Amino acid sequence: MKLQELSTLLASEGFDNELQGDPEIELTAANTLDDAVSGEISFLSNPKYKDKLVETKASAVIVNYNDIIPSGLSVIKCNNPYGALTAAIIHIHGHRIHPQWGTDERAVIDTTASIGSNANIAANVYIAAHVVIGANVTVYPGCYIADNVVIGDDVTLFPNVVIYDDSVLGNRITLHSGTIIGQDGLGYSKVDGQWLKIPQAGHALIEDDVEMGANCAVDRATLGQTKVCNGSKFSDLVVIGHGTKVGERSMLVAQVGIAGSVDVGKDVTMGGQVGVSGHISIGDNVTIGAKSAVWSSIEANTHALGYPAIATFRYRKQMVHVQQLPKLKKQIKAMQQQIDLLQQKLDELSQ
Amino acid sequence: MKLQELSTLLASEGFDNELQGDPEIELTAANTLDDAVSGEISFLSNPKYKDKLVETKASAVIVNYNDIIPSGLSVIKCNNPYGALTAAIIHIHGHRIHPQWGTDERAVIDTTASIGSNANIAANVYIAAHVVIGANVTVYPGCYIADNVVIGDDVTLFPNVVIYDDSVLGNRITLHSGTIIGQDGLGYSKVDGQWLKIPQAGHALIEDDVEMGANCAVDRATLGQTKVCNGSKFSDLVVIGHGTKVGERSMLVAQVGIAGSVDVGKDVTMGGQVGVSGHISIGDNVTIGAKSAVWSSIEANTHALGYPAIATFRYRKQMVHVQQLPKLKKQIKAMQQQIDLLQQKLDELSQ
Amino acid sequence: MKLQELSTLLASEGFDNELQGDPEIELTAANTLDDAVSGEISFLSNPKYKDKLVETKASAVIVNYNDIIPSGLSVIKCNNPYGALTAAIIHIHGHRIHPQWGTDERAVIDTTASIGSNANIAANVYIAAHVVIGANVTVYPGCYIADNVVIGDDVTLFPNVVIYDDSVLGNRITLHSGTIIGQDGLGYSKVDGQWLKIPQAGHALIEDDVEMGANCAVDRATLGQTKVCNGSKFSDLVVIGHGTKVGERSMLVAQVGIAGSVDVGKDVTMGGQVGVSGHISIGDNVTIGAKSAVWSSIEANTHALGYPAIATFRYRKQMVHVQQLPKLKKQIKAMQQQIDLLQQKLDELSQ
Repeated sequence: MKLQELSTLLASEGFDNELQGDPEIELTAANTLDDAVSGEISFLSNPKYKDKLVETKASAVIVNYNDIIPSGLSVIKCNNPYGALTAAIIHIHGHRIHPQWGTDERAVIDTTASIGSNANIAANVYIAAHVVIGANVTVYPGCYIADNVVIGDDVTLFPNVVIYDDSVLGNRITLHSGTIIGQDGLGYSKVDGQWLKIPQAGHALIEDDVEMGANCAVDRATLGQTKVCNGSKFSDLVVIGHGTKVGERSMLVAQVGIAGSVDVGKDVTMGGQVGVSGHISIGDNVTIGAKSAVWSSIEANTHALGYPAIATFRYRKQMVHVQQLPKLKKQIKAMQQQIDLLQQKLDELSQ
Repeated sequence: MKLQELSTLLASEGFDNELQGDPEIELTAANTLDDAVSGEISFLSNPKYKDKLVETKASAVIVNYNDIIPSGLSVIKCNNPYGALTAAIIHIHGHRIHPQWGTDERAVIDTTASIGSNANIAANVYIAAHVVIGANVTVYPGCYIADNVVIGDDVTLFPNVVIYDDSVLGNRITLHSGTIIGQDGLGYSKVDGQWLKIPQAGHALIEDDVEMGANCAVDRATLGQTKVCNGSKFSDLVVIGHGTKVGERSMLVAQVGIAGSVDVGKDVTMGGQVGVSGHISIGDNVTIGAKSAVWSSIEANTHALGYPAIATFRYRKQMVHVQQLPKLKKQIKAMQQQIDLLQQKLDELSQ
Repeated sequence: MKLQELSTLLASEGFDNELQGDPEIELTAANTLDDAVSGEISFLSNPKYKDKLVETKASAVIVNYNDIIPSGLSVIKCNNPYGALTAAIIHIHGHRIHPQWGTDERAVIDTTASIGSNANIAANVYIAAHVVIGANVTVYPGCYIADNVVIGDDVTLFPNVVIYDDSVLGNRITLHSGTIIGQDGLGYSKVDGQWLKIPQAGHALIEDDVEMGANCAVDRATLGQTKVCNGSKFSDLVVIGHGTKVGERSMLVAQVGIAGSVDVGKDVTMGGQVGVSGHISIGDNVTIGAKSAVWSSIEANTHALGYPAIATFRYRKQMVHVQQLPKLKKQIKAMQQQIDLLQQKLDELSQ
């Protein structure tokens, strides 16, 4: 694809832009400013990296209108370089093309399972009894889909994904390797000093357009359902407790852990390693900073941070106060000396 | 099962109770107050949810004696609704029934392995040399049981569980998908500026009645053993370091990480994401709040919390003091003004 | 091996030592002071455990020159008991011997894949198209190696490891069970209120002599590469974000999470559960204490700790100040009383 073609394509997709430089450059790949070589296109979105524009070997770069362009560098100027880059990557690289297995005869598929059209099921897959799977589903080797699971259309399960019995998955879901859906949560009653297991009679429901990274785990509910709603995205090693609901389009960064019976709203973002205690609510549009400990409910539209998490601006003030404690201590010491001196003088006057 | 039957059953199991309402209700399932529909039984244990009694569509609810019952709702009143619910779920839903594979011919079982009666071993399982397995063991697809592993009776390994060489598992153990037992821990010596691997010559021992969630990892010991004692329960993504011992009936919530050579006592509870440093001791009956950082030993019968973890009541006080720092700072400023005024007055008097 | 032989061997490997006791003791195994039985050798490295020398049933112990030796105990005295122990374990136990499969006919190997000499590839392994694998590689059951992956010599993949398409692995790498390399990171653009997936067009590169524990996850890069450099060692459940680089010989303890586009230097150590935010740098020779929250860059040769992480000595001071807050508050109250008294006296004097 030539740079001019990319510019035209981006414009047609709503990324108004201005090409400056050589429209005939042939683009072979998109790459970072550091790693790009001749023939590749890069981008500058985070101003922190602007010095790299000078050193990059990229043949072209997508930039903001107000970026300063080194002479000789071809650029596409637009208002949203990261969005335009996304479009460029889709055009130049496209999405991953899966191996095409049809239905491999070395997959074990129970005779009572029903599988939709255009199945792409690898060797070493196991599909158990009464499973219902939609059309255009890709299942990589080592996946296990347990009894009574229902899966929609256009779903991709990467290697070694496990879907426990009775789980329900919607359409256009992607689960990366090692992710487990619907295993038993930590449900026990103490009886005579021993832990008695509570059968986990509920299930897990994953709605449309959800993607999860590697080695995540979503508990089934004890009763009712654990629910990950439409369009939510998880990174790796995220854990969701039994009976919890994660609202639409929420984004959970790696190693987030949410305990059981939590109600997470829509469009919530949690940074890496955030932990959320059980039986609380997180409102819509809440953003929680990385590694925060959320021990109580958070109202909608809040930025929260800290250990424990409070409003971010308050937490930052609190941090400053803590850092100033040595100064405060010195100040108090000085005041005590002043008081002692006053006392002494007063005693002298009184005599 | 009719409501009257359930009431009688519960009483026979030690849950004294009083049925109020229609004894003839036919129960089809247990469910949450939110999700229950007609024909289902629910429960109220956490008073936080008491308003849901009015709205629930459940046909019957297990409640405390002193709960206020909306008119028309059938209830079973008892002193321990959660315990009674557990019993009800066991009666109505029962425990999971595994697929029955016998010994699938597509499982790879080394000729030197010994497997007890009533085996239930799926396709795509791999059992290596000199493994000894007891009776009534269920092994789901994708599990690998390495050389010289010993496993007792009534054990269930869900899909893609891996048991490394020389590990020993007792009876009635359940390991959920993706959990790994006995892999090498982080054991290296620095020699000439490089990390030299120390062969991990010990093993991992999991005692009776242990259950672990998905994607956990229990290191083998460098020497001797890593040990998870009778009746302990782990949630998902729990990590246990080499040479550590977790005492009887301890409960570790998701993403807990315990470093190596730690001695954890009996009946210990750790909340989600708790981290414990190496070479320390946690006494019996210790409870550690979620996301605490445990950097030193904790005495028996302690509630601990915080970063780093200290006695919970002290940590809560400390938190209050930190939150009051802005107030304290204002107070100090006001005191300084008072002192300055005193100084001024004193100076006037002295003249 | 006799104790005298071990002493001689250790000396030949640079561990000067002095045998005191019975040189004819026949050593069958190395073990901990607690678990050792007759015929076994143990070690004392951490002075915390010195009292165990009296109680151990080990036949011989590797100790420091200045340790006090109970009468009747045979010992090897040297300056580095832990290093000498490592050598002793290697001599007595050796490294794990893998099952020998050759190339199992039940492995699925694409006809376009190229595999080096002396392959050891188990049943239920899947090697996809255009994969290139070097010599002396062991691949346990349940591993999936995706399209276009390149793997060097002397690599070991334990059961259920997954290597995504286009990943590159060097020589002498060991990946423990459930570890995933090269899955898609959390890459989305918000378009019209929905998350639009950015194809992750980069790859993951793992250099020579890297070892990772169980259930780790290393994202592929969006563009360019995610890189784990020569000689780095990870424990279990470590997560590396897209585009991040981990420098040579770095050691990451269990559950460390590093976000995307982070530049980690050489010889860095991170304690368990450390979290590192995206787009920052960690200098060479940095040590970060367990469970620290790293929200900004850290200079080379620093010890850092805390929430958020700062220089360890400063964090420890800060902690002391926080713990002394109740005392400080009392002091301020007392000062206020003194001031009030001064005021009163002054008023009396003025009248």
